[in-house]
Amino acid sequence: MPFVQISLIEGKPPGHIKNISESIHQALVEEFKIPEADKFQVINEVKPHQFVFPDTFLDIAHTHNLVYVHITAKEGRTVDIKKRLYARAVELIEESTDLSADDVIIVLSDTAAENWSFGQGKAQLADMA
Amino acid sequence: MPFVQISLIEGKPPGHIKNISESIHQALVEEFKIPEADKFQVINEVKPHQFVFPDTFLDIAHTHNLVYVHITAKEGRTVDIKKRLYARAVELIEESTDLSADDVIIVLSDTAAENWSFGQGKAQLADMA
Amino acid sequence: MPFVQISLIEGKPPGHIKNISESIHQALVEEFKIPEADKFQVINEVKPHQFVFPDTFLDIAHTHNLVYVHITAKEGRTVDIKKRLYARAVELIEESTDLSADDVIIVLSDTAAENWSFGQGKAQLADMA
Repeated sequence: MPFVQISLIEGKPPGHIKNISESIHQALVEEFKIPEADKFQVINEVKPHQFVFPDTFLDIAHTHNLVYVHITAKEGRTVDIKKRLYARAVELIEESTDLSADDVIIVLSDTAAENWSFGQGKAQLADMA
Repeated sequence: MPFVQISLIEGKPPGHIKNISESIHQALVEEFKIPEADKFQVINEVKPHQFVFPDTFLDIAHTHNLVYVHITAKEGRTVDIKKRLYARAVELIEESTDLSADDVIIVLSDTAAENWSFGQGKAQLADMA
Repeated sequence: MPFVQISLIEGKPPGHIKNISESIHQALVEEFKIPEADKFQVINEVKPHQFVFPDTFLDIAHTHNLVYVHITAKEGRTVDIKKRLYARAVELIEESTDLSADDVIIVLSDTAAENWSFGQGKAQLADMA
């Protein structure tokens, strides 16, 4: 049930973007235990002036390769599971792209089970619960 | 007070997009009881490689016509009201477009009344409460 | 730790957008007490048909200059601090652009400290707490 929005500066090869997208999904499958088919993402490619970031924050340096990953997901995961998600997503991104672990920023927004409709105007997760 | 973000693959006629936009708004008016003028939306039209979805999830098939509707709204609606919103939105979309009910995915994010400023730097909903 | 998404109709000069971006950031620094370097934003410039708004809502008139500011931030700020954020953001925008205070809409989404990873796959805010 996650809805993933990935933002980065335009100009990257399609394979690069696809590998980031797949890495995030695979980390969600492994750590949030979502089904393989539960894969809903929008990629947002913007111009440099539309992408604002600091050179360094919390002693981590950023470049124009930086990627913002905003994941809206059903609430209820523990702090430990969220930590494992970040670590695994970055590990998979490093394995499949030349993106630095420093250039992956992830933000989670939690929402209730009844806040999801996967088609047909039904609230599937609320009905399961 | 909802803020609605609608994402779909580019190439649809303006009338199609407008009918989806109006259907979501009308369902919010009817079921969330928002004023007619409380209509704030951004439409996001992306290229096919920027729009990731599964062929099937929860036994519902998806096509390249799929639409993601992300609604940020003031918290406090019941599960039943949310269910009626999804059902009514999809009903209105089916009446006004050729989009399948299977191709409408809705995600709600709830936020507090004080989290909204509708202009002039004021927190209108907090001040009403 | 805020993640800021600013949406407006395309066609504005880069300086206008930069001044809005800086105003929001400066207001976050002053009122939410975030570090200067904690500046993460995406600007979304869309076509007129992609930007839906009412002529008037809550007695505030809107024009095609309208700007939506969606701020995802760590939870825990008081209502008073949020009110000061809106007021200061709009004040700074009025000082640095010709945008009307009526044409600035701000929406906050709160998320938990453990919902942020600022690089390296770590949950920096959860680890600090």
